[in-house]
Amino acid sequence: MNAEELFNQIRLKRSFLCIGLDTDYKKIPGMLLDHEYPVFEFNKRIIEATADLAVAYKPNLAFYESMGAAGLMSLEMTINFLRQKYPDQFIIADAKRGDIGNTSRMYAHTYFNTFDCDAITLSPLMGRDSIAPFLETEGKWAILLALTSNEGAADFQQLELTGGGKLFEKVITTTATWGNIDNTMYVVGATRADMLTGIRKLVPGHFLLVPGVGNQGGSLEEVAEFGMNARCGLLVNASRSILYADTSGHFEDGARQEAMRLQQQMEQSLNKRGLI
Amino acid sequence: MNAEELFNQIRLKRSFLCIGLDTDYKKIPGMLLDHEYPVFEFNKRIIEATADLAVAYKPNLAFYESMGAAGLMSLEMTINFLRQKYPDQFIIADAKRGDIGNTSRMYAHTYFNTFDCDAITLSPLMGRDSIAPFLETEGKWAILLALTSNEGAADFQQLELTGGGKLFEKVITTTATWGNIDNTMYVVGATRADMLTGIRKLVPGHFLLVPGVGNQGGSLEEVAEFGMNARCGLLVNASRSILYADTSGHFEDGARQEAMRLQQQMEQSLNKRGLI
Repeated sequence: MNAEELFNQIRLKRSFLCIGLDTDYKKIPGMLLDHEYPVFEFNKRIIEATADLAVAYKPNLAFYESMGAAGLMSLEMTINFLRQKYPDQFIIADAKRGDIGNTSRMYAHTYFNTFDCDAITLSPLMGRDSIAPFLETEGKWAILLALTSNEGAADFQQLELTGGGKLFEKVITTTATWGNIDNTMYVVGATRADMLTGIRKLVPGHFLLVPGVGNQGGSLEEVAEFGMNARCGLLVNASRSILYADTSGHFEDGARQEAMRLQQQMEQSLNKRGLI
Repeated sequence: MNAEELFNQIRLKRSFLCIGLDTDYKKIPGMLLDHEYPVFEFNKRIIEATADLAVAYKPNLAFYESMGAAGLMSLEMTINFLRQKYPDQFIIADAKRGDIGNTSRMYAHTYFNTFDCDAITLSPLMGRDSIAPFLETEGKWAILLALTSNEGAADFQQLELTGGGKLFEKVITTTATWGNIDNTMYVVGATRADMLTGIRKLVPGHFLLVPGVGNQGGSLEEVAEFGMNARCGLLVNASRSILYADTSGHFEDGARQEAMRLQQQMEQSLNKRGLI
């Protein structure tokens, strides 16, 4: 999927919602635990309840790896289910990988072939050869950590460089020359919406993946105001606030309600900007 | 295992060799492919052929994930085999993880509990809360990317900061205050042996994990000269140069021969420094 095709999905759904599948075995309703793959069963129901409201799903690898081989089986089943029933969804492996060239090549193969995702999140700390293998397949994307939504983002990402600017700005301007707007996105935390204006000056055309709306406290309205570009250019992620919206057993209803609340805000923002 | 216990193993084996289990399914001898888990079978034989010459094994997660659920099963079998037959080996998950707090906590659980490793390699780019969950369990280690052995290390790790010093130096001095010499190590590429002197000034007491000897071209002698401290303080890794030393079918013999060549050089260095 390229940027234009992703924008088409956004217009069609009137939404730029990405749903993070941070599926925690311990938080799954008890009634699903009889299934052979409860995590897949939970994901499947969440997806069925929300697919018309979202353009992307983002499984968080940590949650699948924590269950070992069975976890990766649940991941594979989730991706296959999406591919078969909702082929237009954009699938992001939230993996934050990044290693020397031959190892990154292996990771690219894993997430683009073994698991058939559209995109993978990456830590760019190891530089160009750690990212390059993810930019070689048409239609596949590298999503690079630029400015994250956590407290620790201040420790290194915001350090000032002698050449001018902060580390995260240098990461953005340097890596933007490695790929293009059809294969590179940036992770920018929604808790830093005020900084989106500056980031948009550096990469006016790129898509930004924005986590931190919902449980992490960011404002969707601000993100849309400061971050949207002529092709929307935003995927805004919510995970826990959707997955665990309802703990009374009607988790699909709770998830749908919260996803719809976000989609309606997104529709307003897209309307306001004249994109739909 | 704490630093003193690791040093004891180094003295006992007269070696600070770490063997990287970057086991590539495509490079496994054909005769092993009949086994249900050929990657495990290969690892088992490599370990049996080298365990008296090495103090650590480092499975590279990329190679296991690339095979999906079956890959994680091979990883689990490899770790269980090490734990049962060679309980004194230090096991490093080469995973280069790093994410917001609740996700890092999940990764820590995965690699310290689900897979029972002693240590995990981490990218510190996301800052303190992305690393903290790995420093909470006694005897378990975080191994942080400081200065890597690849070309791309120049892109960001070596950037100059306005406060003085380079990014990798700031990463080292900052993170050294988060943990201690019993739970924190640093990855320093052997292709940068000349820079080890400077790094030793920043962290005189910490262990360094040094990849890049062997196929990546670093010099073991230089690493020992510039990097060794009073408790050795080094784990030097070789992966492909050991695993695929022999392609004629006697891969165990080839691996043992190459591991022994490195161990003998290490013994000389330890002797020279008066540590054995």
